[in-house]
Amino acid sequence: MSEFEESGIGEECGVFGCVAAGEWPTQLEVAKVLTLGLIALQHRGQESAGIVTCNGVNPPTYNTLKGMGLVNNAFPPENLLKLRYGNLGIGHTRYSTTGISELQNCQPFVVDTLHGKIAVAHNGELVNAAALRKKVMRHGVGLSTSSDSELITQLLALTPPMEELDAPDWVARIKNLMHETPTSYSLLVMYTDVIYAIRDPYGNRPLSIGRLVPISKLHTAGAGEGDTEGWVVSSESCSFQSIGAKYYREVMPGEIVQLSKHGVKSLSIVPRPEGDLPAFCIFEYVYFARPDSIFEGQMVYTVRQRCGRQLAIEAPTEADVVSTVPESATPAALGYAQQSGLPYVEVLCKNRYVGRTFIQPNTRLRQLGVAKKFGALTDNFTGKRVVLVDDSIVRGNTISPIIKLLKEAGATEVHIRVASPPIRFPCYMGINIPTKEELIANRPEFENIAGYIGATSVRYLSVEGLLSAVQGGIPSLQGKDERINTNASRRVGHCTACLTGKYPVELEW
Amino acid sequence: MSEFEESGIGEECGVFGCVAAGEWPTQLEVAKVLTLGLIALQHRGQESAGIVTCNGVNPPTYNTLKGMGLVNNAFPPENLLKLRYGNLGIGHTRYSTTGISELQNCQPFVVDTLHGKIAVAHNGELVNAAALRKKVMRHGVGLSTSSDSELITQLLALTPPMEELDAPDWVARIKNLMHETPTSYSLLVMYTDVIYAIRDPYGNRPLSIGRLVPISKLHTAGAGEGDTEGWVVSSESCSFQSIGAKYYREVMPGEIVQLSKHGVKSLSIVPRPEGDLPAFCIFEYVYFARPDSIFEGQMVYTVRQRCGRQLAIEAPTEADVVSTVPESATPAALGYAQQSGLPYVEVLCKNRYVGRTFIQPNTRLRQLGVAKKFGALTDNFTGKRVVLVDDSIVRGNTISPIIKLLKEAGATEVHIRVASPPIRFPCYMGINIPTKEELIANRPEFENIAGYIGATSVRYLSVEGLLSAVQGGIPSLQGKDERINTNASRRVGHCTACLTGKYPVELEW
Amino acid sequence: MSEFEESGIGEECGVFGCVAAGEWPTQLEVAKVLTLGLIALQHRGQESAGIVTCNGVNPPTYNTLKGMGLVNNAFPPENLLKLRYGNLGIGHTRYSTTGISELQNCQPFVVDTLHGKIAVAHNGELVNAAALRKKVMRHGVGLSTSSDSELITQLLALTPPMEELDAPDWVARIKNLMHETPTSYSLLVMYTDVIYAIRDPYGNRPLSIGRLVPISKLHTAGAGEGDTEGWVVSSESCSFQSIGAKYYREVMPGEIVQLSKHGVKSLSIVPRPEGDLPAFCIFEYVYFARPDSIFEGQMVYTVRQRCGRQLAIEAPTEADVVSTVPESATPAALGYAQQSGLPYVEVLCKNRYVGRTFIQPNTRLRQLGVAKKFGALTDNFTGKRVVLVDDSIVRGNTISPIIKLLKEAGATEVHIRVASPPIRFPCYMGINIPTKEELIANRPEFENIAGYIGATSVRYLSVEGLLSAVQGGIPSLQGKDERINTNASRRVGHCTACLTGKYPVELEW
Amino acid sequence: MSEFEESGIGEECGVFGCVAAGEWPTQLEVAKVLTLGLIALQHRGQESAGIVTCNGVNPPTYNTLKGMGLVNNAFPPENLLKLRYGNLGIGHTRYSTTGISELQNCQPFVVDTLHGKIAVAHNGELVNAAALRKKVMRHGVGLSTSSDSELITQLLALTPPMEELDAPDWVARIKNLMHETPTSYSLLVMYTDVIYAIRDPYGNRPLSIGRLVPISKLHTAGAGEGDTEGWVVSSESCSFQSIGAKYYREVMPGEIVQLSKHGVKSLSIVPRPEGDLPAFCIFEYVYFARPDSIFEGQMVYTVRQRCGRQLAIEAPTEADVVSTVPESATPAALGYAQQSGLPYVEVLCKNRYVGRTFIQPNTRLRQLGVAKKFGALTDNFTGKRVVLVDDSIVRGNTISPIIKLLKEAGATEVHIRVASPPIRFPCYMGINIPTKEELIANRPEFENIAGYIGATSVRYLSVEGLLSAVQGGIPSLQGKDERINTNASRRVGHCTACLTGKYPVELEW
Repeated sequence: MSEFEESGIGEECGVFGCVAAGEWPTQLEVAKVLTLGLIALQHRGQESAGIVTCNGVNPPTYNTLKGMGLVNNAFPPENLLKLRYGNLGIGHTRYSTTGISELQNCQPFVVDTLHGKIAVAHNGELVNAAALRKKVMRHGVGLSTSSDSELITQLLALTPPMEELDAPDWVARIKNLMHETPTSYSLLVMYTDVIYAIRDPYGNRPLSIGRLVPISKLHTAGAGEGDTEGWVVSSESCSFQSIGAKYYREVMPGEIVQLSKHGVKSLSIVPRPEGDLPAFCIFEYVYFARPDSIFEGQMVYTVRQRCGRQLAIEAPTEADVVSTVPESATPAALGYAQQSGLPYVEVLCKNRYVGRTFIQPNTRLRQLGVAKKFGALTDNFTGKRVVLVDDSIVRGNTISPIIKLLKEAGATEVHIRVASPPIRFPCYMGINIPTKEELIANRPEFENIAGYIGATSVRYLSVEGLLSAVQGGIPSLQGKDERINTNASRRVGHCTACLTGKYPVELEW
Repeated sequence: MSEFEESGIGEECGVFGCVAAGEWPTQLEVAKVLTLGLIALQHRGQESAGIVTCNGVNPPTYNTLKGMGLVNNAFPPENLLKLRYGNLGIGHTRYSTTGISELQNCQPFVVDTLHGKIAVAHNGELVNAAALRKKVMRHGVGLSTSSDSELITQLLALTPPMEELDAPDWVARIKNLMHETPTSYSLLVMYTDVIYAIRDPYGNRPLSIGRLVPISKLHTAGAGEGDTEGWVVSSESCSFQSIGAKYYREVMPGEIVQLSKHGVKSLSIVPRPEGDLPAFCIFEYVYFARPDSIFEGQMVYTVRQRCGRQLAIEAPTEADVVSTVPESATPAALGYAQQSGLPYVEVLCKNRYVGRTFIQPNTRLRQLGVAKKFGALTDNFTGKRVVLVDDSIVRGNTISPIIKLLKEAGATEVHIRVASPPIRFPCYMGINIPTKEELIANRPEFENIAGYIGATSVRYLSVEGLLSAVQGGIPSLQGKDERINTNASRRVGHCTACLTGKYPVELEW
Repeated sequence: MSEFEESGIGEECGVFGCVAAGEWPTQLEVAKVLTLGLIALQHRGQESAGIVTCNGVNPPTYNTLKGMGLVNNAFPPENLLKLRYGNLGIGHTRYSTTGISELQNCQPFVVDTLHGKIAVAHNGELVNAAALRKKVMRHGVGLSTSSDSELITQLLALTPPMEELDAPDWVARIKNLMHETPTSYSLLVMYTDVIYAIRDPYGNRPLSIGRLVPISKLHTAGAGEGDTEGWVVSSESCSFQSIGAKYYREVMPGEIVQLSKHGVKSLSIVPRPEGDLPAFCIFEYVYFARPDSIFEGQMVYTVRQRCGRQLAIEAPTEADVVSTVPESATPAALGYAQQSGLPYVEVLCKNRYVGRTFIQPNTRLRQLGVAKKFGALTDNFTGKRVVLVDDSIVRGNTISPIIKLLKEAGATEVHIRVASPPIRFPCYMGINIPTKEELIANRPEFENIAGYIGATSVRYLSVEGLLSAVQGGIPSLQGKDERINTNASRRVGHCTACLTGKYPVELEW
Repeated sequence: MSEFEESGIGEECGVFGCVAAGEWPTQLEVAKVLTLGLIALQHRGQESAGIVTCNGVNPPTYNTLKGMGLVNNAFPPENLLKLRYGNLGIGHTRYSTTGISELQNCQPFVVDTLHGKIAVAHNGELVNAAALRKKVMRHGVGLSTSSDSELITQLLALTPPMEELDAPDWVARIKNLMHETPTSYSLLVMYTDVIYAIRDPYGNRPLSIGRLVPISKLHTAGAGEGDTEGWVVSSESCSFQSIGAKYYREVMPGEIVQLSKHGVKSLSIVPRPEGDLPAFCIFEYVYFARPDSIFEGQMVYTVRQRCGRQLAIEAPTEADVVSTVPESATPAALGYAQQSGLPYVEVLCKNRYVGRTFIQPNTRLRQLGVAKKFGALTDNFTGKRVVLVDDSIVRGNTISPIIKLLKEAGATEVHIRVASPPIRFPCYMGINIPTKEELIANRPEFENIAGYIGATSVRYLSVEGLLSAVQGGIPSLQGKDERINTNASRRVGHCTACLTGKYPVELEW
């Protein structure tokens, strides 16, 4: 929760695509589906948003709409109107990792190539971007942004052969790109009348496919193939409900899937090096994803609740009540309460109107800090020992005033229980993490973290505990298996680099 | 929660005032205190906001800043800068009840009178406004808005005597105003170097006083009078924490309190007619106020939790889990779970980025309705019987798709438990309520409300149950008295007009 | 020209009204006519603009649209749309004389009175405003702005009798107002289905009536009464052409004219005190009005040209070329050239994109000053003696760098000829003039004004010369009478207070 | 004048660059100099504006600021502040020729290449753009815009050799580019600490160099080299005065000039094919350029005046007065009056507040047309025969209502004299001209153009007459040579393609 939020830890992006099924021109209003899909992915990036729609005929017409800020601000209705004719399209919502916040970095990118126009939207970060940039520039290409997406489009454009072809082989070019860079990317490439949905061989970033059905059949089991109104692809399945799509399946690590009006077709799976496990980012479970999204067959909320339960097993507490720093830590807090048998109460009430304030704080107001953001629900904890579950401690400067607030308002003890292990290493695969020096877990104060932040005690979830919670090894409360849909036969593996320093691929420097 | 929110039920306004204590010019930055205070009252009105600061010398200089929308938008920093010199000031945040949304209706109002300039901010609605308007106009005054606040300023201006005085008796004029109109108003009147804080004789709208102390002494018991940095007055005490003020006391029904740099002074209490009880709006507890505010010595959150517990006593349910429609019904849901012993789980996840969307929905998207707003946390309720606690059902068209969503996602039963009685009557004292015909409780469908909204069963809290919860008559869970600070000797009474049709004063037509 | 512009000398306002003739609802689109009319009056005020339309039935509905800035910015098309149903309306464009620039001072004002709603738009300044404010406030009225227009509406509202009447006598109230204050005002009062157009007894501010005819008949002599599509009233006749109206006549000093769908009717003429002459502001001719407007039967351009000719007679110059400081001094410069026989050339080219610049000038850029605004057309004056005609010298700091520019670019002599007399006194009747101390004509430097501003010589038009030019006493060039339409029998008189200190009425202090 | 303006005929762009001289970091505030320089070039493009500043060290930091609309709107002061540290920079103001108005087309373009970052600003249009695009794409480069400037940057980037060099040879690359494309471009290329200023071999677009001197020495002859504060390069010399620069010289056709803190250095002149004359766009003289700019040693105003004189020789008229359609035709009208001996008067008064109006015209208002824009100064022409000089007739629909207005207001005859020849052909070198079918000179109505537009007679300047006026062949009025600074020995030539169909290079299709 707040520690992540305050720390500026964030995801690079969300991607979303849609192809109308059946006869074209479609009645589907693809631009509206894209917009609603992106709103549901808004938590993955609030800096800028863009969509590109295409009529799908040859040569195609692409219409682009981009803007800074939230989707609702970036796409004024009068502009959205211009995109209303489209049979397919892709969209993107961006979180700035570099600090350079400009419209020109806003995705999707559209480029004209010898073989026609392509549009590209990308979530992730190429681990070997620097080497690839040099390679592209050595070929004589100028790069106008620092974004990986421009780099990807130019890599796709310059792959030989360089003759004008009747039917350019984009799949070969995509495979070539995938051989050039192992991770991390979930990628949408739109060309004329198809969208290619690609996940890197390590599956580091998520990507799921959904099927648009008539709303009336949305929640019935019997919506057959004939009822399909279109196909969507999204960073997270949470966006499917908001547009009336049924969850279909995930794109597999290394897979290239083609979406067209004729349906969904798996074109290829580019393998990992022998012996390498998949490396889906474990922080998608811990913090980034929306709790109602499904990854690897399990609901994110349930995984977070399991983290809370595992934490209660690893770090039990003599206390009166369990609570949460609203809102993201709530599933873990409820899991902790469930497992420990302690009552769950609310101790903080969030003022949803705070937000980016412009007031230059004077000394007085700066000292107030977190008080503007949270109200203390004193009746619920005065005179009590409180277990406060949070999802992380990054720098330690957000949780500290909350503890102070609770203590001053009457809590006799405040035990911090963190539902994830300490973050110690940078991420090079799409997540914006403070420098090593800023991370509290790398600082001398960490020795006596409880004293530093003013807590009665502090305990973290172990890496093994987190992996158990994610990979389904937590015993159920009532003794029955809680895991849903998990393929027992599947070879699981997750990227824990920011916790352990073990990166899925060797990094070039 | 959502039913209220969706129905457009809302409060007219929040008021906030601040006087710097000690030597003037003050270092307090009164305009910033006002701004932060109003942000904490933002839930009482999002249409427009305004502040007026004053230097406090004679003749005084008033600086006004007004704007449409949320406080953060209404007060751009460069404009706020202009108000930086001020020793006292009042502010207002407005919720439009009339639908006429214009800057000229934005408060506070400043008028020049024979005895100097006054500024007025008002929360409430004068029950006899029509007769008072006629009276003022018959005196030859033209009224340029339909707002009660302009009416109040002109009533204050035209009270005799009409000579130029050295020391005009504003208190006499305020008393005169209070005799002209019995309710409903919580009122701030600023004149040169004092703020008069007034609550109508029925105490229909809230008003509390706080004391600004050094931040370092905020949470210590020992901040003595000598430490006072200023005095604030606010519709709700929740705003005190965010500016570093300690709760001092409520303004009593009928009371005129003077705030100045010298401190707080009770000037007068205008009585109610013999036999009349106070009539504090019970919906401040049920829905309007922020849960961390304190009214009549009790925390709003705790009252809402008691409503949930009383509801569990009145309407027990055979079910597996208890949940809430986030976020406002959560205290009641937790209270219901506590009392009933059923486990509390979350079933809905709110997309905080939805909000006012501009997209013209086509048939497809309109059918999706609530799906854009809430994600279903299916793991938590599939195959289970759910008690869903909401704070009200107004028109019935918000809860219905939520029930559908839960059932289709696997809930075997959905029992709706409403933590307040049915709303049947209009409010003439400041709350915007749909017309009688729109209220579900007045419609034929109400006979079979469960069938109408698709629930397995529906039960409401009784009026008596609500009054018990508000007036402290609920037995505590562990057998000890839960009420905090309630004056047993106090004659309590609350306005339940919208539930019962019993208005505190006779209405003129 | 520029000296006035740079000095902030300006007119208070322009007013414009329109009533559709014939059957209602009209097809005339009154709101658009008002908007175009105000755009044509934009030179009279750029601070804010407002229009009020009315459906004309009883009780009437008034729709108001106000905004800051130029008309085109103040009235966004979507807002203008809301006013599209209206059978009559009035509008206003405002120039701030007080420096307090707020939407709440924006006219027209609409107030609800015992006898219904009136809307008021005003150009001018009440010479006895302070006494009238005190009188109104003594009656118990609070005033929320410092504007004369609010004062006028409250004066109209409080005039007895104070009973509710079937047919309130607004004309009696207007006459009463005119007896309370002698000048200066051109006033529009809209009530239900009529507009009263009023000019003060001294006729200090202009007001003209036009007749809307079918565009096809606009320029034919034969457009009969039957062709009338509506009636308009405007501060200046220049606005008539832009909306397709024919000039009808001026409102006379002291006259109350009623405009309704039935036509134009003179209701009354309130006389001046015995012996007083009319006092139309002579600066309307010199600077404020648009050159294509007609006052007292003569075109403003022609009067300005006569000023230039008179100046050539009074102050002949040995020189090579005559030129202008563009654009307002051009008619006078051409007149000077005509009379003197010297060739007219252009020496300065205006950059029309300069305008309000936000750049904080550093020392370097501040020194550049006027260079950003004007380019030197060197070929036209290098090696020549230049007569440069300007319309005024107010503070002397605008003309000075222009002279420097011309000299450095090669002019051998620069003779300044000013087509109006020196301004020495403040105006209390609606014109914003710098303080006496700032006026160059009141400063010691004026003794050697040529040296001070760097000119070879400086000469002003005499007061008598200006009056001759305005009142038609200049002999024509070719010996025939140039005056058009002037009523020889009319008793003429003009306000020259800012030049001579002789005010039309005695000022109260 | 208006015919051009109304027809949407326009220039593609203006470019401006600045290098501070002497020690770095400079005190010059390069970003402000660029902004003021672009404001002075605003007439060359109002769609968008951009500047890029550079600190000039290796590796360099570039800061970019771009925005839509006029310079003053595009560069809000808080954004400009971010660019305040810069020792050199280039800027661009853009006029959309393609109708695609997007921020991403806004120049300057910055790209990262193997040899570092370059920034490019371009005025003109590459005649062989289509072939060059194909060539670049065949090399494997994707192009993200349709702009020539992106094409130019990629051409510069892909020129071999492709090794990483210590000192990349940008001049060789620029020469290579110039061999790839003969015209039309005036180009600025910024690299680390130098600006290359390039003009195509035909010199089709203008480019001049200026020297920043201390303001105090601006107009003195004696500002020596030691006084140089910086060097500027601009599409037009009119911008020099507004920033305090002295005119230095033009960049010659085909020349590459290097500007650095050490001064100005001519690096190379790329020749034209044997026998080809220069082809400076003659319409820069006729319409596009600001009258105070200097091209080929002559002031634009003077050339326009000569056009008017030549027109009076070619097409004399029996009439009473000569006038102009303000403002751009005024020099020609004054020249016509001078040569013919007829008096010059003003007949139209422009309403400077009209401008882009949003009002959807109804039938009535559409018929009014030009009346909103111009007021008739009737006194000056009633009963008279008028020669009205305009600078062009493009479609014929602007001049027509003006003639109608004059005739209806009393002109007995209206003779149109056009100070340029009829436009008959499209431009492929940077000017936006209507399609051939829209040009009045290509339509059957042209046979009887006078009847078509309602004039008494219509005459155009001949192509030969225009060339004489431009190339200095008009005898002076007083018998002395009027030409300033013209190099008699210079081989002159001008592009008259839009008038004659003779393009300077063969066009590829």
